[in-house]
Amino acid sequence: MLSKNQLKYIQSLHHKKYRQQHGAFLVEGAKSVQEVLQSDFQTELLVATEEFYKENARLTDHQRTPVEIASVADLQRAGTLESNNAALAVVKTKENRPLLAEPGEIVLILDDIRDPGNLGTILRIADWYGVRKVLCSETTADVYNPKVISASKGSFTRVSWWYGAIEGVLQQSENAVYGAFLDGEDVHTLDFGSSGYLVMGNESNGIRPETERYVTKRVTIPRYGDAESLNVGIATAVLLDNWQRTVTAK
Amino acid sequence: MLSKNQLKYIQSLHHKKYRQQHGAFLVEGAKSVQEVLQSDFQTELLVATEEFYKENARLTDHQRTPVEIASVADLQRAGTLESNNAALAVVKTKENRPLLAEPGEIVLILDDIRDPGNLGTILRIADWYGVRKVLCSETTADVYNPKVISASKGSFTRVSWWYGAIEGVLQQSENAVYGAFLDGEDVHTLDFGSSGYLVMGNESNGIRPETERYVTKRVTIPRYGDAESLNVGIATAVLLDNWQRTVTAK
Repeated sequence: MLSKNQLKYIQSLHHKKYRQQHGAFLVEGAKSVQEVLQSDFQTELLVATEEFYKENARLTDHQRTPVEIASVADLQRAGTLESNNAALAVVKTKENRPLLAEPGEIVLILDDIRDPGNLGTILRIADWYGVRKVLCSETTADVYNPKVISASKGSFTRVSWWYGAIEGVLQQSENAVYGAFLDGEDVHTLDFGSSGYLVMGNESNGIRPETERYVTKRVTIPRYGDAESLNVGIATAVLLDNWQRTVTAK
Repeated sequence: MLSKNQLKYIQSLHHKKYRQQHGAFLVEGAKSVQEVLQSDFQTELLVATEEFYKENARLTDHQRTPVEIASVADLQRAGTLESNNAALAVVKTKENRPLLAEPGEIVLILDDIRDPGNLGTILRIADWYGVRKVLCSETTADVYNPKVISASKGSFTRVSWWYGAIEGVLQQSENAVYGAFLDGEDVHTLDFGSSGYLVMGNESNGIRPETERYVTKRVTIPRYGDAESLNVGIATAVLLDNWQRTVTAK
């Protein structure tokens, strides 16, 4: 059973300030918890219904994860999900280590993506398209926000990220830097290189001028109808799809 | 100012039952309300802050739309948005008329898309890719749900829809029917025809067997990483992007 102190601690992790202070974040729901237990993340506490615990004992026992059995009501009180009848894990955050682009690699750069749902969706898309590294401006949503973790559908365990001054990274790079704009080259006919950066900008304002100066190729998804724009998650998927298509065709 | 009865009426439209009973739905927020006032939808009541009304008088006056001036607090009490400092429109629903695919047209079929956010996003994507008609199974989310309208970012004014037995439509059609599956032909190399249907299935279960039998070409988005799946909105965008790319290249 969850103690009052445990409940209070878990609830504090809904907030970025306490996640940073404690170096821990929440993973919620059966699927995401199963994925995190099988990943290289370190789980400091698993809160689970008896049923989930029994079915997944194999995953917890070999890691010697501390476990508390809880009711569905307690799980929902502790966590952020409206409905969670399975489990919640308190997981240690990782060190913020710089990530370098290797040859032949596509690296995603998020320049001020503010919406946690968008960030989570983008991690899932990166994971689908084989992108393993995501560099985020300091102003991008916190990847450890429970909404991001939840929207990523487990992909947060397979994609690495770094937060910092992305201008500095771009300045030192000799790689191609593709940036999504409304007036760039048509991605249906563009021949993407086999590696480089793809920069996606803020939901309302796009890529910031201080980042834009390092973009070596402006790219655009052609429009056939009348919508003003595409959501940034959708645009990321379409761009990576076109990039991987041209690389594969070589 | 909003009367108690007006408030009650508007709040009832949060629910499908009352939207159907009254033949009306809600459009909320500055951008969406501006779009609906310029569309062929009929607005029966505009509730607006004084500021929004003054700035948009041109849009309401020529349609002789009844207007109530309201505070931000009242707007938020009446509507579904957490924050709305502009306006809300009560709009008449349209008749559910059958839509036929014209030659050279791509028509989207939604087979049991349950999430209103996904449906709204799909309308926006359809609008971007020039798809003007969307056929929905009866089990697909209600397009007049405020979350759908809001997520469509105004695209609901430019895309037409029909709800009904999609099997019947497909049965009578001689058009190509493309369906999204995990084991279909790679859309990066597939040569799409210039017209036809694209069927997207349920978020968890995909296309239903009774619809699947009419699919003439199974298509798949190639995966380069490890995510199990893509969100249905993302998949719709990537498929339409590939379809329009091959049609344009001809």
